[in-house]
Parts: sequence; structure tokens; C-alpha cells
Amino acid sequence: MLNKIKTLILGSPLPTRSLTEKRLNKVRALAAFSPDALSSIAYANQEIFLGLVVAGASGLSLAMPIGIAIVLLLTIVAASYFQTIEAYPGGGGSYVVARDNLGSFFGLIAAAALLMDYVLTAAVSLTAGVEAIASAYPILWSLRTEIALFLLVIITLANMRGLKETGTLMSIPVYLFLFTFIPMIVFGLFKLSTQGVQELGAVAPPAVKPVTLFLILHTFATGCTALTGIEAISNGIPSFQPPEIKNARITLVVMAILMGFLFAGSIGLTQSLGIIAGPQQTILAALSQRLLGDGPGFYLIQFATMAVLAVAANTSFAGFPRLAAILAQDRYLPRQLTSLGDRLVFANGIGLLALASGFLIVLFRGESHALIPLFAVGVFIAFTLSQLGMVVHWLRLRTPHWQVKASLNGLGALTTAITMIVIGYSKMLEGAWITFFLICVLVIVFMRIKHHYQDVSSQLTLRGLPPSLRPLPSPRIVIPVSGVHRGIIDAIDFSSSISKDVTGLYIELNPGEAEKVKAEWERWFPNIPLVVRASPFRSVVAPLLEFLDETDFEHNDGQMAVVVLPEFIPARWWHGLLHNQTTWLIKTALLYRRRHLGFQRVIIDIPYHLRR
Amino acid sequence: MLNKIKTLILGSPLPTRSLTEKRLNKVRALAAFSPDALSSIAYANQEIFLGLVVAGASGLSLAMPIGIAIVLLLTIVAASYFQTIEAYPGGGGSYVVARDNLGSFFGLIAAAALLMDYVLTAAVSLTAGVEAIASAYPILWSLRTEIALFLLVIITLANMRGLKETGTLMSIPVYLFLFTFIPMIVFGLFKLSTQGVQELGAVAPPAVKPVTLFLILHTFATGCTALTGIEAISNGIPSFQPPEIKNARITLVVMAILMGFLFAGSIGLTQSLGIIAGPQQTILAALSQRLLGDGPGFYLIQFATMAVLAVAANTSFAGFPRLAAILAQDRYLPRQLTSLGDRLVFANGIGLLALASGFLIVLFRGESHALIPLFAVGVFIAFTLSQLGMVVHWLRLRTPHWQVKASLNGLGALTTAITMIVIGYSKMLEGAWITFFLICVLVIVFMRIKHHYQDVSSQLTLRGLPPSLRPLPSPRIVIPVSGVHRGIIDAIDFSSSISKDVTGLYIELNPGEAEKVKAEWERWFPNIPLVVRASPFRSVVAPLLEFLDETDFEHNDGQMAVVVLPEFIPARWWHGLLHNQTTWLIKTALLYRRRHLGFQRVIIDIPYHLRR
Repeated sequence: MLNKIKTLILGSPLPTRSLTEKRLNKVRALAAFSPDALSSIAYANQEIFLGLVVAGASGLSLAMPIGIAIVLLLTIVAASYFQTIEAYPGGGGSYVVARDNLGSFFGLIAAAALLMDYVLTAAVSLTAGVEAIASAYPILWSLRTEIALFLLVIITLANMRGLKETGTLMSIPVYLFLFTFIPMIVFGLFKLSTQGVQELGAVAPPAVKPVTLFLILHTFATGCTALTGIEAISNGIPSFQPPEIKNARITLVVMAILMGFLFAGSIGLTQSLGIIAGPQQTILAALSQRLLGDGPGFYLIQFATMAVLAVAANTSFAGFPRLAAILAQDRYLPRQLTSLGDRLVFANGIGLLALASGFLIVLFRGESHALIPLFAVGVFIAFTLSQLGMVVHWLRLRTPHWQVKASLNGLGALTTAITMIVIGYSKMLEGAWITFFLICVLVIVFMRIKHHYQDVSSQLTLRGLPPSLRPLPSPRIVIPVSGVHRGIIDAIDFSSSISKDVTGLYIELNPGEAEKVKAEWERWFPNIPLVVRASPFRSVVAPLLEFLDETDFEHNDGQMAVVVLPEFIPARWWHGLLHNQTTWLIKTALLYRRRHLGFQRVIIDIPYHLRR
Repeated sequence: MLNKIKTLILGSPLPTRSLTEKRLNKVRALAAFSPDALSSIAYANQEIFLGLVVAGASGLSLAMPIGIAIVLLLTIVAASYFQTIEAYPGGGGSYVVARDNLGSFFGLIAAAALLMDYVLTAAVSLTAGVEAIASAYPILWSLRTEIALFLLVIITLANMRGLKETGTLMSIPVYLFLFTFIPMIVFGLFKLSTQGVQELGAVAPPAVKPVTLFLILHTFATGCTALTGIEAISNGIPSFQPPEIKNARITLVVMAILMGFLFAGSIGLTQSLGIIAGPQQTILAALSQRLLGDGPGFYLIQFATMAVLAVAANTSFAGFPRLAAILAQDRYLPRQLTSLGDRLVFANGIGLLALASGFLIVLFRGESHALIPLFAVGVFIAFTLSQLGMVVHWLRLRTPHWQVKASLNGLGALTTAITMIVIGYSKMLEGAWITFFLICVLVIVFMRIKHHYQDVSSQLTLRGLPPSLRPLPSPRIVIPVSGVHRGIIDAIDFSSSISKDVTGLYIELNPGEAEKVKAEWERWFPNIPLVVRASPFRSVVAPLLEFLDETDFEHNDGQMAVVVLPEFIPARWWHGLLHNQTTWLIKTALLYRRRHLGFQRVIIDIPYHLRR
């Protein structure tokens, strides 16, 4: 029945041969890879506003300069990734680039930062999306955590089922967002030109903090979240239609221009029109409400923002499981993460991501603002390592124009490194330390896991073993029995068929019980000895282990006695609740109890199925 | 390490031979068996007050008449149990008396009522105890649930450890309660004689309900909870020093007199002094505060009340596991309930009781008043069945004076039956239906469990089997392997030593992997065939089962192939997280998959322990 429900929700299993990737044209590729990058303007704008509003009008007047600095940074980073596309046409994720050029250690740091990032992208995008729609419907404001979790469940199930239509279905929210937001900003600019600039002093709340360098850096740092997702295209080049490199590059340029326009446009309008957000409202919602009034246009914009943010969360569900699988293939994560589920998706990775981001959403009560300090720092660590890796790449290969290319990536590395330091410095106490700490923990875990797998494979190697089998003597068999009944007949039958040395063992729990059992045993199995052991502490396992040790010691033939376990299997699983789980206890104890090296104790399970 | 913590909290295991019962003299026996009965005046008084106060002064003036009716009932019930002691010197619990005289069906009803009762005694006593102490320290009032659960955990652990000192340690709260409460009531009576009766009209809150017959019956019904625990002595006669019957009878009489005095005294004083309880205060607390002021005496009384109620909860921890073990011995409950834990206590029963009463405390938010309607009805069902059983007992045996004895027990049965009907009628909607419903469910569960055990033992019987063993042919062996490595050598070695017919089976999960495995296999095990099966849906279990079915069908020798499972065991349990649990999945699938009747598939587990 459980299986039927699973099939209903997730669909029926798919065979491995259906595993082919569909190539995307530029229009679909933009929709597939850009939601994260485009939608990040929603929370970046919000953070810039929240960072500056505490300093009143003079604070808010810095929004535009900070915005321009971020757009500049965006240009440099985009140019850097433009080069990565050429160098890594097979997909140049930060992990691969850093691993190949800087060594596995830096690769692992990048990988840890990226994994954190994917989790945070999902959590921040969902919470910001819910905030967008709750700005339009304030009644939802207090239910933000629940709604975000609900969306998370939907996205998780959809990904478990496998999204064949990434390029089609997903493109609707993306283009809806673009075709509503761009006209709104154009309309806003037109309005601005007829209306003139609004003096901030007249509308801004009074300053509660002075404008300091720290405040500016801090705001810049949080605003840099606008850049998250820009690396997505360079990870996914093999999904483009040929010529892949050219198409990917064009798409990257288009995306960067759109990002820059949307970000600069909205932040410029916000400042020039003197827009201030209310307490249960995002700054983008305040902007669109000012421009479009309370009409359907406003609701459409809020809905489009939420939809594109939900799709952005979805991109984590593509990236995280794939990166986790690559790490698992390199033996840095449990190998279960490499296994394709029934629907040909990395189901374990998807589940892990859903759990982690759900945990964050609950922990931070569905507030994107609280999550941001954790978010920005990981992104820029990955950026920096990836750009540094590219510099090394050019220095090593010395392809034509390598000097120009290396300097360009060097500039990228330098600016992202500075940004990373600024973010780390200004956001450390607010939460960036959590990211730093978790990255360290993850790197250590990666290395321990690798170490374990190497250990195991060195213990499993056949090298050095003589290529022949050792002849074993006939096994000595011990059969623990709970009484003389139908369930032990098969066990005794089978044991006698493979060995001449069979012994029954009865553990007497309540004094006096053994006599009757012994008499009946002798009546039924006169040729097989039965040993009785008393158990003063009423445990079955301890006297059994003791007996086995003794008999092994007595025989001293380098072989351990084989244990044959008669096990009766109830007709219904819940009948198991009515029986002692002694057989299970014995099995577990025998299996996990390591004796001297070499051949371990063999356990033979002889099931006897009850019919009802 | 877990074991060490367990030993620290619960003590080290005790051998079965230390299982002896200490005999109690009358003073200790009173302390051991009376806490439930004596302490029940705490909540009974409270319920009478709460039932009458809604009808204002004219309601409260009925407290005394209702109290007298209950004391009368107490006398009849005590006299009935006085006779049970003589008839069942081995311990006459309601279950045993009803089972022996009325048949197993009525015995099961009594048993179900008693089990419910034990759970409710624990829950009601603990919550009432916390209410007593929170009446003295109002700051604790909002933490009642948490404190009650904390006490429950303490009592549970103490019982898991085994309370050797039932008669000694437990007697302190009981005698503290008696030696503070009796003087207080005497002092109150003296004060009353000098001061005169207070007119209720002057102090009672205005009536919000009229005095109706239903209100009176309702109050009488809840007040009857004062009788709970009176049967305890008749259950525990073997614990008395000889002459057991005489000593038990004297103790019963003393206890009944104490109960009657405490109950009638406190209810009389409450009414005559015109005492009204505040919103966060029990009526007994209001009484002692009036008599003793806010001095240490008041706090001592509240503390003694809480302590005696906690000890009363503890008596459930003696009764419930013992009754559950008797029922399990009769095969009406899972046999795990009969097994004595490391400390010679019925640990499973104790755990079950703790879970059930903890659940009730949480569900009813630590409010004894909310639990009472569930409580009273079960007690009186057990009383009635037990008295009815005694009537049948006398009719059957016709010992000297059997007519008198039968009439006395008949009177007891009649009055308790009427009380049961009154309680059921007046409290049905408030919660008594839950008890009735659960008793029905429990009786059905008892019978189903018995049925299952009978089924199993009929399937396990050897009757009808020829007393000789069937000679089995040499087994056909299939070894599923995940590759050619050190972990499979022992499995192949062992298989070859017990059979000539051994086949390896490799399930190919990713197309193309099999070739390398096959080549290596042939290099190492040239004499053993390896079969390769592809798994298009990436499952290991399904193709394995398919192969086994096919090969069984091909051979058609009435034998199923034996499966040998090479299993490598990680050095640390958490390493298991890094490996697929394929072997476990295969074992479970094979074990629980029933084929045609007769000999089932044998599973041989060959562990290979990793050293690190």
C-alpha cells in the first residue's frame, strides 16, 4: 500500500536507459539558469533599504552609490565567468575549477561553501518569495514560516518526481517576472522624468544611527547578495544546444545586462521617488504599489516576484544533489548520494537539501532578513576560489592572450576576495561566523569520509592473497532453541545435512524449565546432544556467547562454531509485537561482536513462516 | 557507554534467586497499601466542592449529606473486601475473583477497568499532588504539567531500579500525612465548637445553576473517587506477616476508619466553617489556610498532601505491572510483559504505565479535575464485578454462614452497581464514555492476542509429525556479490565447504560494469560460475529474487537455493551511514517473503569485520 501511495505521488520507476539530457535553446536556457540570479534583486534591494533606513534621509541617499558599486562588481564577476565558460565547456562549477587548479583542499572549501549556498538559496528565496506575496496580502504575514515550508514540500516532491520540463514550465514565472518588472521600471523612469526627484528629507524616518563607514560597508555587503546565482550558467554548459560555448556566453551576457538593469533601475527609482517601506512590506512591494497603485498590476508584480523566487529555490534542487553526487563520486560524501532513485533523480540529495533548508526556515522563523548574513559569505568564498583557480589555469596553459585573461580573472578574484572580507568583517557577529564554522566542519567531514573509504578499500583489496581457496573442515554447528516445537525441525534438518557435529543449546531462564524440554528433545532428536545452560540474570544472549566461546576454546581448531538460528516469522508484521525479539538480539550480538581476526562466526537463519 | 549510564541510574543487574518478598508488619503494611485510599480524599473533596459551588450557598449546604452517603458506601465496600480477604488469601484482585467466579469474559472486563484505573490513579494523584503544592506556591500553578511529568519520571526511574524499601521509605509520607492531617481536623473541630457554625449564605458566591437532582447525583458520582484504592489490601495479602488474614483484616478496618474520619472530618469542617476556595487553590488548601494561617503548618500540610499523593501514584507502579504480567501469563497481553528486567522488576509494564499516564497528564494539561470523569467509572466496574464474583463464590462453596456473607457481598455489589450507573449517567459526556470505550477496546485486544497465541502454538506443535528427520540433499548455493574483493572470500570458502553447487550472482546497476567484475572473478575463482543480471531499475533486490525464483523453478527439486550473504561489518557503527545497506535489504526481503509452504529459504550470513 505504501508503494502505491509513493507511485501516485512520485510516478512509477523509470529504467536507467531513459537517462538522457535535453538540450536547451537560449530562450529556455535563460529561464533555466537565471531565476536565482534575477530574483536575488528582491532580497538585495530589501537588505540595502533596511541597512540604510536606520540612518534616515542621509543614509537612504547612499542607496544609489552602493547600487552602482554592486553593478560594477557584477560586471567584473560576469566577465570572469565569461572566461570560465570557454575554459570549462564540460561545466565549470567552483568545486571543479578550484580542485583542478588549486588542489583538492581548496576544492573542498569551495564545495562546502557551495553546498551551504544551495541550502541558503533555497531558504532565502522561499522566505523572500513568501514575504513578497505577504506584502500584497498582509493577512499571510504571520503565517510566513508555514507557507514557506508548504512551498518547500511542493518543490521537494516535484523534484523527487523528476522535472522533465525544466525549460518549459519553469520559464513561465521567469518571463512573467521579466515582462512585468521591466515595463514597470520603464514606466517608473518615465514618471520620474515628468515628476522630478522627491526630496528624501521629507519622507524618510528620523535617523537612529549616524552614517559611518561601517554602516556603508555593511549595507554593501548585504547588497552583494544580488550577485548570487550568476555562476549558474557556467555550471550547465553541456545543457546548451551547440555551439554550446557561444550560446552560453550570449545567455550570460543577456542575463548580466538584465540583472544590472533590474537592480540599478529599481534601486534608482526607490531613491529618486523617495519610497519608504511599511513594517509588513518589502521595499519592492512599496515601489510597485507607488507606481501601480493598489490595482491588479501591483498584485501581478507581487505574484510574479514570488513565483520567480520559488523557481530560484528550485534551482538549488538541481544544483545541490548534482554537486553532492560529484563529491560522493570523489568519495567525500556517503556513496548513497550517487545512487539514482526510481525516478532517475538523486533522491537522497534532494531529501538532504529539503531537510537542511526546512530546518533553516524554521530556525529563522521564515525571515529572509535574518538568513542573509549567513548567505552572502559562502557565495563570495566560492567566487574567489573559482576566479583564483582560473588565474592558475591561464598561467599553466598559456593559451593565446593568456595574460589578458589571467588579469581579468585576477581582477575578479581580487574584487570578490575584498568583498568576501568586507562581508565577513561587517557580518561576522550577525551570523557569518555560522557559515565559516560550518564550512570548516564540512571540510573536516569530507576528509574523514574520504579517509574511511580509503581505509575500507585497502582492507578489501585482494592484492597479496594467494589465488586459491582454503579447504575448510566440516562446520561445528550450535542451534540455540527456545523449546521443542515445529519451528526448530527445519533448522535441525538443514544442520544435519551439512555437518555431523550438531549441538542444541537451551538457555534456561526460569529455574526448573529445562527438564521438560530435555526430555522432549531426547524423544524427538535422540542422536543430537542438547546442552542446557542456566541464565541467572535472565538474558539469553550472554550465556549463548559464553557457551560459544567455551566450545571454540575447547576445540581450538581455528574455526568458530556456526550458529544456526531457527526463526519463526509471524504472518503479519504487527504480530511481531507479541513475541520476544530474541532471534534478532542474538543475530545482532553475533554479527557485531568481532573475535580474533580471520574467519568470523557464520550465522545461518532458518525461517519458519507462520500461516496465520 | 550506554550500558554504564543505565547501570548508574538503575543499578547493576540482579540474579533471579534474589527474588524473595519481604513480609510487612501492620504498621508498614498500612503505609504500603493505604496511600491511594487515604490520599483520594484530596481530589474527592475538591470535586465535591467544585460540583456544588456552582449552586451557591444552597448547593454547598449539601456537601455534608453527600459526604455521609459516601462514607456509608465506604463502609459497605470495606465490609465486602473484609470478606474477600478471607476467601482469597492468595490475593484477590478483581481480575482473579471475576475470572474464577464469573468466567474469563467478565474477568477481562474487570482487568481492562483495573488497568485503566491504575493509569488514571497515577495521573490523577500526580496532578492533584502538584495542585496541592501549587496552592501553597502559586508561582508553580502555570507549570503544573511540567512538574507532574517530572515527578512521573522520578517515580518511573525509582521503580525501574526496584523499590526494596516499599514499607520503610514510603511510610514517611503516609505517616507525615496522617500525623499532620488528623491533628488539624481535631483542632478544627475544637475551633468549631468554640466559634460556632458559619452561615454559608454570607460567604458563598452567587448561584449560577439551580440545585437539581442531576447536580446532586453528579457531585455524589465525582465524590465517590474517595473510595479508590480501598481494594489494595485484599490484593496484597501474601505480603503480610502471619497470621496474614487477621493482620490484613485489621489493617483494612484501620484504613477504612481513617479514610472515613479524614473524609467526613474535612468535608464537615469545610461546610461548617464556610470555606470557599480561590481560583488557584484546592479546597483542602483553603481549609488548612483558614485553620493554620499562612504559617509553617499550612506549608507542611500542603507538602504532606503532595507527598502522599506521589506515593499513591507509586502504588500504581506496583499494581499495573503485576496485573499486566498476570494477564500476559494468561496470554491476554504480549508475553514481554512477563519478563523480569535486570533489576527483577517488570520493566516493560512500568514503562507502559509511565507512557500512558504521561500521555494523560499532557492531554489534560495537568488538571486533575478534567481527569476525574474518566477515573471514577472504571473503579466501580471493578468493584461491582469483584463483589458479584464473591456472591457467586459463596453460593458455590456454601461454607458456614454463606447466606450472611453472600448477602453482604450482594449488598456491596448492588450499591457499587448503582453508583456505577449514577457515575456513568452523570459523567458520560464529560469523559466517562472514553473509559467505557477504552475498556471495550482493551477487552477486544485481549481476546485477539489470546487468539494469536493459540494460533501460533497450534502451528508449532509437533503432534502428528513423524519422529524422524528427513534427509536433505546437498544445498544449492547462490552468493550475491557486489564485486570481487576481500569481503567475499570467506563466503566462497564456506559455501564450497558445505556444497558442490555454488553460483556467484552479480547484479549490474550501471551498464558496462559487469565485464571487469567477470574477468576478475574468473581469475580468482575459475571453478565457480558467475551469473550476471542487469538491473534496469537500479534495484538489487528485485533481480536477485527473480533469479532465485528462476533457478528454483529450473531445478524443481522441492528445495530452494540457499543464499550466502557476504557482509562486511564496519569498525564503528556510524561508518554504516557511509555504506549502502544492501545486505540488510536483501536479508529482510528474503526473510519476510513467504514462498510455498514447507522448507523456507535458508540465509547464511558471513560477516567480514573491517579493522578500522
